[in-house]
Amino acid sequence: MALVVHKFGGSSVGSVERIQAVARRCAAVRAAGEELVVVVSAMKGETDRLLALARALAPVPDRREQDVLAATGEQVSVALLAIALRQLGCDARSFLGHQIRIRTDSAFTTARIRDVDATEIRAALAAGTVAVVAGFQGIDPAGNITTLGRGGSDTTAVAIAAALGAGACEIYTDVDGVYTADPNVCPAARKLERVSYEEMLELASLGAKVLQIRSVAIAAKYRLPVHTRSSFNDRPGTWLVENYPMMEDVVVLAVAHDLNQAQFLVPDVPDRPGVAASIFVALAEHDINVDVIIQGVGADGLNDVSFTVTREELARARPLVEDVARQLGARAPIVREEVAKVSVVGQGMRHHAGVAAKMFSTLAKGGINILSITTSEIKVSCLIGAKDVEQAVRTLHAAFIEEAGTDG
Amino acid sequence: MALVVHKFGGSSVGSVERIQAVARRCAAVRAAGEELVVVVSAMKGETDRLLALARALAPVPDRREQDVLAATGEQVSVALLAIALRQLGCDARSFLGHQIRIRTDSAFTTARIRDVDATEIRAALAAGTVAVVAGFQGIDPAGNITTLGRGGSDTTAVAIAAALGAGACEIYTDVDGVYTADPNVCPAARKLERVSYEEMLELASLGAKVLQIRSVAIAAKYRLPVHTRSSFNDRPGTWLVENYPMMEDVVVLAVAHDLNQAQFLVPDVPDRPGVAASIFVALAEHDINVDVIIQGVGADGLNDVSFTVTREELARARPLVEDVARQLGARAPIVREEVAKVSVVGQGMRHHAGVAAKMFSTLAKGGINILSITTSEIKVSCLIGAKDVEQAVRTLHAAFIEEAGTDG
Repeated sequence: MALVVHKFGGSSVGSVERIQAVARRCAAVRAAGEELVVVVSAMKGETDRLLALARALAPVPDRREQDVLAATGEQVSVALLAIALRQLGCDARSFLGHQIRIRTDSAFTTARIRDVDATEIRAALAAGTVAVVAGFQGIDPAGNITTLGRGGSDTTAVAIAAALGAGACEIYTDVDGVYTADPNVCPAARKLERVSYEEMLELASLGAKVLQIRSVAIAAKYRLPVHTRSSFNDRPGTWLVENYPMMEDVVVLAVAHDLNQAQFLVPDVPDRPGVAASIFVALAEHDINVDVIIQGVGADGLNDVSFTVTREELARARPLVEDVARQLGARAPIVREEVAKVSVVGQGMRHHAGVAAKMFSTLAKGGINILSITTSEIKVSCLIGAKDVEQAVRTLHAAFIEEAGTDG
Repeated sequence: MALVVHKFGGSSVGSVERIQAVARRCAAVRAAGEELVVVVSAMKGETDRLLALARALAPVPDRREQDVLAATGEQVSVALLAIALRQLGCDARSFLGHQIRIRTDSAFTTARIRDVDATEIRAALAAGTVAVVAGFQGIDPAGNITTLGRGGSDTTAVAIAAALGAGACEIYTDVDGVYTADPNVCPAARKLERVSYEEMLELASLGAKVLQIRSVAIAAKYRLPVHTRSSFNDRPGTWLVENYPMMEDVVVLAVAHDLNQAQFLVPDVPDRPGVAASIFVALAEHDINVDVIIQGVGADGLNDVSFTVTREELARARPLVEDVARQLGARAPIVREEVAKVSVVGQGMRHHAGVAAKMFSTLAKGGINILSITTSEIKVSCLIGAKDVEQAVRTLHAAFIEEAGTDG
């Protein structure tokens, strides 16, 4: 008897009818003799509805309380799915983060899983019960409710699959899998059969919304195959694997883009060791992730420092950056919200020079101005104006993927 | 420094604006130097919304899962109120049933509190923090989420006030207090300044919706004064107390009515000892409360047995009653849904004969047919047709209260 972990996203459980469809799918898996754990997200729109209530009360809601609030979305989903499964005669039981001890750190709204106690789930499975687990939520050492950040249910599913030693984790979502670019932006985009963990880590961090990046990191750590696929059809999606044949022949696997960016520019930061770092220390202490850091080499012992944060974190980041700038004697920070990040990714880039140069010339030919650049071994990212992002994705996809005939 | 427990019902926290009003009221109490515990219900309409989702999936939803679902309503409220308080600069922290260990039995949807561990709340209060506690919810010995039934947040508030040794518990609701009858039905109804625990226990069990009956029982046990009042004005409401002057001079204190009734009639039950009891044992095993039991004396060793349940429990009760009736060889049960219960209550009835007789003659004069009667030392209840209930309340209020000039 195999043990499988299935995860259903918010759009898959977005209505009574869809919950019933998920229940039928799960009951069929169980009837086929599989031991089944189902991880579910909040019903589509629910998390946004809850956070809007919080923001109506406070521009920057207390993060501990925001997690208490947001965790209710998944609690509703697990109860409803368990009710639907039992109505089909399929024994099922809901489990919340605090009940199965999904232990996390205390970084409210972006907590990381430390470990999962699978004892209760194993007992339920052994009794023939479908374990319906609330995604996204955990509990910190003091018993506070925590959440894992947007897309955190993926991470819950992969962490539970790893803890249980499941053969694979199936992530059902509202898209068919991982594409060479966002098909809503680039009609020529094609679905990929396989992506390596390393490539997916880059894609997830660069704005591809198929999987939460931490879920990919956990899958990579445990070498757990993850299948991301649509809950609205039975077609295969994209498999995340350690590696796949021919991967080094593919130079650029996919083009990613991310509109969820805001850029800070701090002019006239004193050019002394550790000074620029003090900005990033202040942000890190508040669990704000920083990306695309550029430190210009200025005159008169003064530098311009720029970096990006996500737009959600802009409101929290702004007073921190302003404080540090004041302490450093720098000028007042400038914030650019109308920016976007466009990236090309592929493991084969390690062995091929010239990807960055080709990217810059391709964007330049399209008349697209580059604000900042970051690179890693397997990706090149450019910060550009938000208005240019769709054209940039299509141009880069044509140049790197359609013309190169990348494996789909 | 006094310790006070305030409870706000669903309509008091029914919108962002109302939550802000509650936060301002609480912050003022805290600023005046009081140690404050606030217990809140789900936002008005939220519990109904959630249960409608459950019922769309299953006519009789699994009760464990229904509690997982319903408990989210209060979780949302505590998070939002804590966010609003912190926005006012008032330190506050939410507590859920499982976090402060509101330990209950395992009777899902109608659980009873066994004990409350006040340690964490005391620590928060000592640190100057307002403790915002989720009403209605608890945790059973196995760690399952339980709920205390409709109005259960009153019981949470009173149980916490008792556990903390608070001087009083203030229950803020959408009505001004306890009336001599429902003012929506009887325009002559007047607000009562004081009601004894014993009278309130009867009134709550007879359909007065001001307070959950269990909260009154706990208040009585600990002799905790409870003040039930409106959250929309500052006028005093009604105090629940051990006793009050002159109470024996008041024969009938109030008229109560309850439309939430359904009557079962089981014809031709064999007249052997214990046979009728088997019906009630089956219902009790499923935590269904039964009221107004009448066993007629029939011919041929067969009796007709009738009793009432609440309309919410009708769907669960019906198959149980049908099963037992079949096993007993009785005829198929008949269900009457168009019934209501009207009652007169007063501690002074102990010392005054003739209340039942006056009630029957008053109803008869109004042409109202009585289906069944039950009495206790301090109340008389009649089951009547639902269509007659408003007229019955007004007629009884006029005869027993307006004409007698009851203390208001």
